[in-house]
Amino acid sequence: MSLIVTGTIGIDTIETPAGDRHEDLLGGSAVYFAAAASFYTQARLVAAVGDDFPQAFIDSLNDFAGLDTAGLEVRQGSKTFRWGGKYHDDMDHRDTLFTDLGVLEEAPPPVPEAYRDSEVVFLANSHPMVQLGMLEQFPDAKLSVADTMDLWINIAKPELTQLLGKVDGLVLNFDEAELYTGHRNPVTAGKHLLELGPRFVVIKKGEHGCILVHKDGLCALPAYPTEHVVDPTGAGDTFAGGLMGRLSAKGGDDLGSFESVREALAHGTIIASFNVESFSLDRMRGIEKGDVDARFTEFAEMIRLG
Amino acid sequence: MSLIVTGTIGIDTIETPAGDRHEDLLGGSAVYFAAAASFYTQARLVAAVGDDFPQAFIDSLNDFAGLDTAGLEVRQGSKTFRWGGKYHDDMDHRDTLFTDLGVLEEAPPPVPEAYRDSEVVFLANSHPMVQLGMLEQFPDAKLSVADTMDLWINIAKPELTQLLGKVDGLVLNFDEAELYTGHRNPVTAGKHLLELGPRFVVIKKGEHGCILVHKDGLCALPAYPTEHVVDPTGAGDTFAGGLMGRLSAKGGDDLGSFESVREALAHGTIIASFNVESFSLDRMRGIEKGDVDARFTEFAEMIRLG
Repeated sequence: MSLIVTGTIGIDTIETPAGDRHEDLLGGSAVYFAAAASFYTQARLVAAVGDDFPQAFIDSLNDFAGLDTAGLEVRQGSKTFRWGGKYHDDMDHRDTLFTDLGVLEEAPPPVPEAYRDSEVVFLANSHPMVQLGMLEQFPDAKLSVADTMDLWINIAKPELTQLLGKVDGLVLNFDEAELYTGHRNPVTAGKHLLELGPRFVVIKKGEHGCILVHKDGLCALPAYPTEHVVDPTGAGDTFAGGLMGRLSAKGGDDLGSFESVREALAHGTIIASFNVESFSLDRMRGIEKGDVDARFTEFAEMIRLG
Repeated sequence: MSLIVTGTIGIDTIETPAGDRHEDLLGGSAVYFAAAASFYTQARLVAAVGDDFPQAFIDSLNDFAGLDTAGLEVRQGSKTFRWGGKYHDDMDHRDTLFTDLGVLEEAPPPVPEAYRDSEVVFLANSHPMVQLGMLEQFPDAKLSVADTMDLWINIAKPELTQLLGKVDGLVLNFDEAELYTGHRNPVTAGKHLLELGPRFVVIKKGEHGCILVHKDGLCALPAYPTEHVVDPTGAGDTFAGGLMGRLSAKGGDDLGSFESVREALAHGTIIASFNVESFSLDRMRGIEKGDVDARFTEFAEMIRLG
């Protein structure tokens, strides 16, 4: 099935706990998502950048065979979204150093006519009203999933609640699930969120894995244990990209079922474990589907019981 | 194979985040461990209490058919160890309200002659020199595993390091692994600890599961997702009890192998998930082996891939 992602493209600055500063990195939620999803299926990308966006970054995106950049708008006279973050020693938390919204403060990018038939829709992190507006442009959507963040829970909770009534799935962090629901227990928080509309909620716990709370079941998965955590930026987006890419590639009548989401989450786990091993898309650029499949098999064996 | 545990028996006071105070609860590392292990095998308990220890608590221990209390010393003129703790809202962290060491400040309990042939030895949390002294009393030990805590890392690190040179396995918390090694990444911390002697290190992450770093492999497991967390006291001890109970029950030439420990960790996960559902041993007292097996099967299905 056709997969589309709408979200941000950014030029990132990352400071590591050791104090190293890495500038002008290709980033943004939609970029990480689409690159990850492209290992599984054709991923359509809808996002806007400014005229400062380097051609080398566009070339870099086009290097992913499964990544369709026809919906990437280069807006003249605008600036690309820029974000800087500094990671704490634990690599789990970070401070935002700066945010220059640029083109994100303007009208959302247009959806190409050829993309209107998209069946699987991922609304990467953005203002819930932008996400709602995007969702309405895909009348054939069979499965829609949204990401969100603490900012929107704090400043746009009613709009986010409205969005939850329209999507099939929600992906968010452990802390965000508590912030929205007031429940720290992820199962309780997930059940609370299900009452607002979605069939399933995926609670991301970074290096501690994830919890799936689905109308038809419950599942916890560990993260793939790795020593080589260079830059966690995009871990959640690539996790979602693997999840949605795998769901789209499998398609079928059970799209969005407990079993399909559960299995796809493990693919998201694996692709995210590659992503954190370097900056930007560097690690994903250096691997092939066979590498992803090999690590998936290793992971499946690692947690197989009986 | 015969399993023995040496450690503490306590009378606990627990304050919940809601402020409820529960006094005079049967607790202590060896008690939680032995009750959990008793679902799998005969668990020999070596520990001392004072003459204030209620007969009802002894009866309560004897209610577990697999729990052998012949090594429980009731020391006249001494006081039982008492501990009070208050849990934070997150149920993951707690403050110690008070500690009355009592009998723990005196000589360790004697090991009954009939226990000297124990083949699987668990040294529950205690001063490393006490653990070393206990270990020496089991010349037939085929597998020895120790627990520890931040206190000993802070005040008795050389002794703990000496202990690590003598045991086959170490069980400790995520934060403790970092405290000892200086490495926050659990895989890196685990590998560092392996260099000091053990064949395997189990890093406990509470509600986030555990990581096994073994000379022959690496594994991560999630915790069993439950909403019903009433009292996390003893979670780590029951986890270790299920682990060691299962290893003892299986026995065999591969005792302590990567595969045997990996599988047994899942049993520890399940028995710990029951324990946190009530205070003291209450939940474990209300279940049978069939309940444990049923949840194990559910857990295995939950994380089965492909």
